Amino acid sequence: MTRRSETAALAALILALAASLLAEGAPWFWPPATGDDPYCLSWRVMVEANNAKGWRTVPPPCVGYVWSYMAWGQYSRDVGSVADQISAYAAQLAPGADGLDAWVFDVDDTCLSNMFYYQTKQFGAYDPVAFKAWASRGICPGIPAMAQLFQTLKGRGFRVFLLSGRGEQELGSSTAANLAAAGFAGYDRLILRSAGYRGVSAVVFKSAMRRQLVEEGFRIRGNVGDQWSDLQGDLVGDRVFKVPNPMYFVP
Amino acid sequence: MTRRSETAALAALILALAASLLAEGAPWFWPPATGDDPYCLSWRVMVEANNAKGWRTVPPPCVGYVWSYMAWGQYSRDVGSVADQISAYAAQLAPGADGLDAWVFDVDDTCLSNMFYYQTKQFGAYDPVAFKAWASRGICPGIPAMAQLFQTLKGRGFRVFLLSGRGEQELGSSTAANLAAAGFAGYDRLILRSAGYRGVSAVVFKSAMRRQLVEEGFRIRGNVGDQWSDLQGDLVGDRVFKVPNPMYFVP
Repeated sequence: MTRRSETAALAALILALAASLLAEGAPWFWPPATGDDPYCLSWRVMVEANNAKGWRTVPPPCVGYVWSYMAWGQYSRDVGSVADQISAYAAQLAPGADGLDAWVFDVDDTCLSNMFYYQTKQFGAYDPVAFKAWASRGICPGIPAMAQLFQTLKGRGFRVFLLSGRGEQELGSSTAANLAAAGFAGYDRLILRSAGYRGVSAVVFKSAMRRQLVEEGFRIRGNVGDQWSDLQGDLVGDRVFKVPNPMYFVP
Repeated sequence: MTRRSETAALAALILALAASLLAEGAPWFWPPATGDDPYCLSWRVMVEANNAKGWRTVPPPCVGYVWSYMAWGQYSRDVGSVADQISAYAAQLAPGADGLDAWVFDVDDTCLSNMFYYQTKQFGAYDPVAFKAWASRGICPGIPAMAQLFQTLKGRGFRVFLLSGRGEQELGSSTAANLAAAGFAGYDRLILRSAGYRGVSAVVFKSAMRRQLVEEGFRIRGNVGDQWSDLQGDLVGDRVFKVPNPMYFVP
């Protein structure tokens, strides 16, 4: 080919690419505007406000939206904003000298990110076998703003309890190793689901575990989770904080 | 001027306008992309999820964002989505023949919109005198999706109670007239703040009023409000729904 025909071919390729982008919407790897799809933005806000409940998968038209939201900055920004709110609230509290002022953190998608797993599943229905295989690898990245917050709270003299619905027997050691590798070292206790609580709802299990902490004398000053089921039920704490999660819903 | 110099002047004007738009961001009258400002979107989602509490004004950098959100479609879309959720939930309920299945609705920015008032105040700090003057005019527009939902629930055989922190003595008649004009005819009771509850927090006042309804035998199947203080406290109902409101916060 001559240089002129090469240039023409390249121009045609670029034009075709641009036309396909305009026709189909941006592909998954293309950074979108933050708010992008008005319908999916409405849906995401409903999830965060606990208006949309019991959904089993991300609505099919919003799979690309959720992918972009998670991957291209707005999720990180939202988590960072929530961490700032928590930090500002905690700064007003004076932990007692008795060492009983405590925070409760959920684990999955509060401390550790399962984004990569849910991306490969296209945010589809819950698959317990595949999720267990993923979680047992112990390679979930830590969520940076939360790891920093965790250290801030520890540094201010709070006790921090990690409370997760993961099965203790199957996932106890991999979860502990994952947390340590992801910047969550120095928590007071990692409370997982023992055999006796298998099949019990998150609200009931977590309420029972919090009751145990309160009976031991701890004052739950704050409670942080990505699911409303982390934050409702009994003895939820003085203040609850919802970490964004439009990927899945735990009843 | 010659035609050519007129054209040149017009082109220069258009270029200058375009340059100023690029430099300053879109002016208030310009329909923005829905998600627009990443920081303000984070803040708005935190408000809806009850992570941001006790704020006295919209953050100054977000005044334009909130204006655009309210005025240019996304707010209406969000309210419509919540109304759809409520309608779908209510469709699963079978109201009893005893006529005791009830819904509780807040009034301000749940049934009636104060958007025009808060726009003129630039979403600034609460001003009780000016708000009372506005509300006593009785000209708040009804929120269309909520008026339709209200009629749907009535049609399905639910009792609907409107519960508002507005003062009964000062605003009782104007509120009733405003509701009737705005498409909210046929409610079972408009419960306003009597003299005995003056100065009491919204959570305490509304909890007491709901308790009265429950003691009368009503079953509160759903509770709809634009403030978390409408939806927390005692006897909140079987399910609560948060209508979006990034304009102001009622503790």
